[in-house]
Amino acid sequence: METNIKYAVIGGGSWATAIVKMLTTNESKVGWYMRSVYAKEHLLNAKHNPNYLSSVEFNTDKLLLTNDINEAVTYADYIIFAVPSAFLSSELEKLTVSLEGKVIFSAIKGIVPETGRIVGEHFHEKYQIPYDNIGVITGPCHAEEVALERLSYLTIACADAQKAKIIAKSVSSHYIKTKITDDIIGTEYAAVLKNIYAIAAGIAHGLGYGDNFQSVLMSNAIREMRRFIKRIHRMKRNINNSAYLGDLLVTGYSIFSRNRMFGNMIGKGYTVKSAMMEMNMIAEGYYATKSAHLINVEHKRKGKTPILNAVYEILYEGKDAKKVFQKLTDKLD
Amino acid sequence: METNIKYAVIGGGSWATAIVKMLTTNESKVGWYMRSVYAKEHLLNAKHNPNYLSSVEFNTDKLLLTNDINEAVTYADYIIFAVPSAFLSSELEKLTVSLEGKVIFSAIKGIVPETGRIVGEHFHEKYQIPYDNIGVITGPCHAEEVALERLSYLTIACADAQKAKIIAKSVSSHYIKTKITDDIIGTEYAAVLKNIYAIAAGIAHGLGYGDNFQSVLMSNAIREMRRFIKRIHRMKRNINNSAYLGDLLVTGYSIFSRNRMFGNMIGKGYTVKSAMMEMNMIAEGYYATKSAHLINVEHKRKGKTPILNAVYEILYEGKDAKKVFQKLTDKLD
Repeated sequence: METNIKYAVIGGGSWATAIVKMLTTNESKVGWYMRSVYAKEHLLNAKHNPNYLSSVEFNTDKLLLTNDINEAVTYADYIIFAVPSAFLSSELEKLTVSLEGKVIFSAIKGIVPETGRIVGEHFHEKYQIPYDNIGVITGPCHAEEVALERLSYLTIACADAQKAKIIAKSVSSHYIKTKITDDIIGTEYAAVLKNIYAIAAGIAHGLGYGDNFQSVLMSNAIREMRRFIKRIHRMKRNINNSAYLGDLLVTGYSIFSRNRMFGNMIGKGYTVKSAMMEMNMIAEGYYATKSAHLINVEHKRKGKTPILNAVYEILYEGKDAKKVFQKLTDKLD
Repeated sequence: METNIKYAVIGGGSWATAIVKMLTTNESKVGWYMRSVYAKEHLLNAKHNPNYLSSVEFNTDKLLLTNDINEAVTYADYIIFAVPSAFLSSELEKLTVSLEGKVIFSAIKGIVPETGRIVGEHFHEKYQIPYDNIGVITGPCHAEEVALERLSYLTIACADAQKAKIIAKSVSSHYIKTKITDDIIGTEYAAVLKNIYAIAAGIAHGLGYGDNFQSVLMSNAIREMRRFIKRIHRMKRNINNSAYLGDLLVTGYSIFSRNRMFGNMIGKGYTVKSAMMEMNMIAEGYYATKSAHLINVEHKRKGKTPILNAVYEILYEGKDAKKVFQKLTDKLD
């Protein structure tokens, strides 16, 4: 069903592509900013993104494609950011127009490395966007399955329920079901933390731990996530809802997760640097680990997050993965 | 570390074999009853179970192998039952000696089909075993990974903590960690219910649902499990502990789970009968579905267990899996 909202999606990756696909099911026009001039031209000519989800065909009449982020921002009422967190700051530096009055949704699932903040906090603190105009779009959702139109459930979080409902309406379809919540802090931290636990799952697999251990690790991870988020933002939430537990599972059990893959290489003996070079990209969970660790240090509550601590020691203190995990296994139950 | 307890394990399958392996790490003698005369002779000669976990070599000096259940029961103080629930009644009918004074642990994870009771209740009601002498050994644990000595965590449940501690001591080793709890009802129902959810996961996979949906299904399943168990036996428990959530995950995500495999065939269009014939066995979850449904009917609370209801309709009311799951997807979130 079409709303009267003008949307722009910021990003040219797979998750951005999936979100544009969802929006164009309902909306007659969607703004779409991507950095790559080549990808934009290819999209206009061949009707698909050459780099990501290339099986998805777009009706380009519905797309307002641009390589200028200012054009997309000027056009839109609701702006959905779906770039890797590592590129968010540099993209925002290109802004010459104001974000005032805009509704900002994050589909980033990462920590802004320069500030250690989740995306909502970053927009609030650096751009004075009121929290009522900030939201989160979260899974559990692999973009690849959206491309295949396999049934997926999204959670849309916003302090202003009306805005969450509007986005929910715009992305819903026969293969997308939505749920709304006001827990923008919790859903965003969950999306960030799950990448750390996916790295842990990968390390365990790389070290030779099996499925029995993996299930214990995930069972401990969701309890750890609950404690961590509760400390940051105490409110009534069921940590077993799809946006928290579901999102953890879809990533932790996915052999396609880049975070899990990164962890797997570390477990198999790659150094952090060589694993990054091999993957030709940096897994979101790498930054998340550092930021989450710093939050722990601030709160002096390091003992309550044994999995996060183990991943931190391996990635940032150069400790031996095998030894660190041997100690970790005694802290799990 | 050796205890002074005399153990007997009842059953010749993979889980029974794994438990005997764990016990013989610490105990100098373990009673082991199995029905098959051939398997017993093979074990004595070739030092391994010919049918299950055949890579596991036993020191037969440590085994008191028998084809007579009465001999095993007479020998032991603690008896661990690990036969499929469908065979429990017929095995128990062979008893001519008394179970009085014995400590009974269930490693069965199923419902006794003749009575619709979990194993602990069955022993309590039919054999007047006091609840202080009844316990549960539960995972998350694939027997196959015990064979490989891959790190696994067991939960030992008993109202009498001392008895749980004794078993925990006897099965612990460099690859087995244990946790004890007094929630015998909850852990046993969890072990039963997870097989139903594994069937649901299999049906979903067979119908073509993907990983995004699977994670939503598991996230809903653990919430459903919590509600169901809370109704049967209200006590303070964290449903995200390994014995509940971990056990659900290790089964629901396992492509080797017989319950998941059974569901997968149903999802792909096999009838219940032909799926059973093809598998040459009956999945535990098949009985569990009926018993759990009957408990729901008793409590008039059917609406609160949409996944169980869906599986019941497909397995016992001959409803079309595709249509039932389409309706189910609207009830999940």
